Amino acid sequence: MTYTPPVRDYQFILGEWLDIGRYANLPGFSEASMDVVGQILKEAARFTSEVLAPLNPVGDKEGCVWSPDHSVKTPAGFKEAYAQLVEGGWPALGAEPAYGGQGLPHVVNLAFSDMSSAANMAFSMYPGLTHGAYSALLNGGSDELKARYLPKLVSGEWGGTMNLTEPHCGTDLGLLRTKAAPAGDGSYRISGQKIWISGGEHDLTDNIVHLVLARIEGAPAGVRGISLFIVPKFIPDADGKPGARNSVFCDGLEEKMGIHGNATCVIRHEEAQGWLVGEENQGLRLMFVMMNEARIGVGMQGIAQAEAAYQAAASFAKERLQGRSLTGPKNPDGPADPIIVHPDVRRMLMDARAVIEGGRAFLFWTALHGDLAHASDDEAVQQKGRDYMALMTPVVKGFLTDRGFKVCSDAMQVHGGSGFTEHFPVSQYLRDCRIALIYEGTNGVQALDLVGRKLAADGGRAAMTFFAEVDAFVDAETSDEMKPFVDGLAQSKAQLQEATLWLMQNGLANPDNAGAASTDYMHLFGLTALAYMWAQIAKLALAKAGDGDPYYATKLTTARYYVERVLPDAAAHLAKLKTGAATLMALDAEAF
Amino acid sequence: MTYTPPVRDYQFILGEWLDIGRYANLPGFSEASMDVVGQILKEAARFTSEVLAPLNPVGDKEGCVWSPDHSVKTPAGFKEAYAQLVEGGWPALGAEPAYGGQGLPHVVNLAFSDMSSAANMAFSMYPGLTHGAYSALLNGGSDELKARYLPKLVSGEWGGTMNLTEPHCGTDLGLLRTKAAPAGDGSYRISGQKIWISGGEHDLTDNIVHLVLARIEGAPAGVRGISLFIVPKFIPDADGKPGARNSVFCDGLEEKMGIHGNATCVIRHEEAQGWLVGEENQGLRLMFVMMNEARIGVGMQGIAQAEAAYQAAASFAKERLQGRSLTGPKNPDGPADPIIVHPDVRRMLMDARAVIEGGRAFLFWTALHGDLAHASDDEAVQQKGRDYMALMTPVVKGFLTDRGFKVCSDAMQVHGGSGFTEHFPVSQYLRDCRIALIYEGTNGVQALDLVGRKLAADGGRAAMTFFAEVDAFVDAETSDEMKPFVDGLAQSKAQLQEATLWLMQNGLANPDNAGAASTDYMHLFGLTALAYMWAQIAKLALAKAGDGDPYYATKLTTARYYVERVLPDAAAHLAKLKTGAATLMALDAEAF
Repeated sequence: MTYTPPVRDYQFILGEWLDIGRYANLPGFSEASMDVVGQILKEAARFTSEVLAPLNPVGDKEGCVWSPDHSVKTPAGFKEAYAQLVEGGWPALGAEPAYGGQGLPHVVNLAFSDMSSAANMAFSMYPGLTHGAYSALLNGGSDELKARYLPKLVSGEWGGTMNLTEPHCGTDLGLLRTKAAPAGDGSYRISGQKIWISGGEHDLTDNIVHLVLARIEGAPAGVRGISLFIVPKFIPDADGKPGARNSVFCDGLEEKMGIHGNATCVIRHEEAQGWLVGEENQGLRLMFVMMNEARIGVGMQGIAQAEAAYQAAASFAKERLQGRSLTGPKNPDGPADPIIVHPDVRRMLMDARAVIEGGRAFLFWTALHGDLAHASDDEAVQQKGRDYMALMTPVVKGFLTDRGFKVCSDAMQVHGGSGFTEHFPVSQYLRDCRIALIYEGTNGVQALDLVGRKLAADGGRAAMTFFAEVDAFVDAETSDEMKPFVDGLAQSKAQLQEATLWLMQNGLANPDNAGAASTDYMHLFGLTALAYMWAQIAKLALAKAGDGDPYYATKLTTARYYVERVLPDAAAHLAKLKTGAATLMALDAEAF
Repeated sequence: MTYTPPVRDYQFILGEWLDIGRYANLPGFSEASMDVVGQILKEAARFTSEVLAPLNPVGDKEGCVWSPDHSVKTPAGFKEAYAQLVEGGWPALGAEPAYGGQGLPHVVNLAFSDMSSAANMAFSMYPGLTHGAYSALLNGGSDELKARYLPKLVSGEWGGTMNLTEPHCGTDLGLLRTKAAPAGDGSYRISGQKIWISGGEHDLTDNIVHLVLARIEGAPAGVRGISLFIVPKFIPDADGKPGARNSVFCDGLEEKMGIHGNATCVIRHEEAQGWLVGEENQGLRLMFVMMNEARIGVGMQGIAQAEAAYQAAASFAKERLQGRSLTGPKNPDGPADPIIVHPDVRRMLMDARAVIEGGRAFLFWTALHGDLAHASDDEAVQQKGRDYMALMTPVVKGFLTDRGFKVCSDAMQVHGGSGFTEHFPVSQYLRDCRIALIYEGTNGVQALDLVGRKLAADGGRAAMTFFAEVDAFVDAETSDEMKPFVDGLAQSKAQLQEATLWLMQNGLANPDNAGAASTDYMHLFGLTALAYMWAQIAKLALAKAGDGDPYYATKLTTARYYVERVLPDAAAHLAKLKTGAATLMALDAEAF
């Protein structure tokens, strides 16, 4: 059993539902006809399933190996696969043509990233972090820095990292201590220890470009005194080739529960030479450009691991013979029925589909708004794109990874005892997926970002726009066929609005009420967003059901399942969050 | 940070709430005054926290090592700790005095097992499985077999195992192929391969006693043709000492996600000499004696791992400084506040407490019914004890492990990135805990056992008795102080009863409806059972709150939290299960 990229679903999302062809007049989209996209999807499916997927268990078992000379060896085959990645031009897919990119919309690149992540999450993090470094530099770097670094990051010849965390500061970056001292030549000397640096050292590329948060001598305390620097492992020479070795070293690797194929490094900057990216003390803002992009990518990882785990579970459930159907033998000539006949096994597989397909739709729908925020020639569309990206990012990250992990765990459950052994792939999916709930801001931080910042931004404009969009959809879809989907959506949206009102009334009076409500609110929001995605998909599937293609009938069943069996959680989240912070905060810390 | 056994909670449960002193007239209980029990708890806490807990990470990292001579080496320190376990007489705690046991009630032994499991799950499985073998033999063995084997199992000098699973049959034991041929001397020759045999080979004991399911030549097909055999690794000689080596061999170990310190063996029986336990073709019934006891033990493991993970999370949350309270600094002289000030961190810790303390109460309450089923001199009490044990066993196993795993995952989340590294203990707790949802019958099998067998048994007597008990409690507790607990319980019980009625009306018409409802029903049952436990605990805590001991006020807060923030899930489970099997079963298997 190996991973099969769900190409049909990407085609459905991009070509039929989001219908990206209608944006052909916009930059990027003009190159993204569904003919071209179809070719890309096909080739991406081949590369990820044939090259990356077979290396996934290898990476898990071998892990990365650190040597006292500060080098890190990636698992067998990673180097060759990375060379193929670069040769195939995959890192350039969504990057700016000015720096060698293909300039395609992010939604197209997202399909490739999603497949890569499902095929081999640990591997795909190397180009993933590189893309984050590219974005920060593109947004904040001087023309000189851009010219020197971006082409190498776009091609994938050089790798990129994010150097944020220090032993005493993760979420609370205001505490960071890494220092930057002006060297007098326009560069800085960076000193400090960074931890949990994904891809911080490896043998895949000629050079590694670290984007490092540090505090310039004399800068204000807290988050207002943090600047962003670029610190290359090898300082580019006059020809732009890797030159002198910079004093940035990997002092070791973390042992972790999953993503063993990705090197999680302790990085020591010892008066390393670095160059300021953007303005002094504006580092956090730039880092959040990377971070927000990364958060969408992490939400994607949750769905990607869930997809891979679901495929393994579905395959197992169709092959494993055990017991008989409650309604009489379905495989009477065999010793037993395949376990997919059992309703409780079905329940786990259908839960998975409803979350994965709805979640993937939500992911691409959000990313399309991100594309339109940049590419649209209509200011209103741009603004809505920016608003939705800001509002939905914490939901994509937090809700999809929480739910994705549950899918991975259910996929293990479908396997029974086999799933707990490392002979089957699902343990790795579960272990790899688990980090997605934590990094780039824990899911609790996402929830707090949603209720504390994103909801209130611009007078609540983004949320009100979304609510109005849902209401308009509900009002417009009055057919009997659409009724189950619309009723479920309307109810969930009413619950979400009630929760929003509760937050407005109680969160300002006591901020702990907002904190206490945040995770349940994020889940209620995610459930409603997926209900909206499923209702739109149902509408399209109803229109196409006459085609005879069973794909649409299957979508309709899954949409119905979502409303019946997933959406009822919305009411529980509402009931919980409305109880407020009083009981939750009542105990003294010493009681724990 | 190391595990600290919650001795106060065991004392509260046994001494104050269940008040086992009132059964002092019954066998076993007469030896279990709270003075004696208090001494046992104290000594158990010392042994498990000082001897077993430090070996937990060692077992995880080293694992067990198989050699081509079929031997298995347990992790460093396990052998010495096991010797101390035997020397301390711990395996004998709850065993029959006739075979060297101390004859104490199971609830007392359960406290020791719970601590052992929290301290070191992989280690505690060795004596755990031995106790299972002891129970099967005690129930079904001839006097001769009992005399030969039981004293050695009771003392722990010999280990015991359960040999059920074969590569092609796990849940569906009717498919098993291992053969037993009469040897003509009253013994049998057993041949076949068994897999996933916990403690199937190790270096802790002089002998290992396998209880093996096999099919006697000519026996009926399916589950009616399965017999139980005892197959010792070394055949006891005339003096009862390990004699000739039997032809039962460990051919390898499974690599698994967790419980690395426990040897999960492939066992080959090659015309091994075995002796029939009980009657021919009655093996499954006897194995279920072991299995049911083991299921209670697995539910306990879910809670035990959750307790250990919660302790690690609470400790981390009180020490880790990151960010500031939303209501102003709580540690103004420090660089940041401890993260326990954040409501979303509290939410995870309070969820954990509500599930662990309520779950532990449910576990001991159920086990006490098991004790009374044997020890009571009142036939009505015995019957109720048997009924409740049968009814609650799948709920204890399935609900407590599902919820326990969620607690472990939340405990990792409290740790942030640290939790994903293997430098902190919580990854091991999560990985170890995960098997508890699978073995001794997956949680889906538990749910089906509950709705398919246990509910309907004896005309639904057990469930009706339980519902009536809850109703009587609700009717009796009319004080204002008890209102929140009683209202929550009454609502949840009404939902459970509605679900039960739905099952009666729809499960018989279409058994797939019962299967489709089973897991949600099990969770609704578990939530209601814990609501009943918490309401009883609240009643006692209210009565004692005047004492000035903050323990009782803390219990009241946690009880309130349970009703506010955990119990609302009940309505979601009811809503889901009432949608039936139609949509869930609609897709063809090929669509997956």
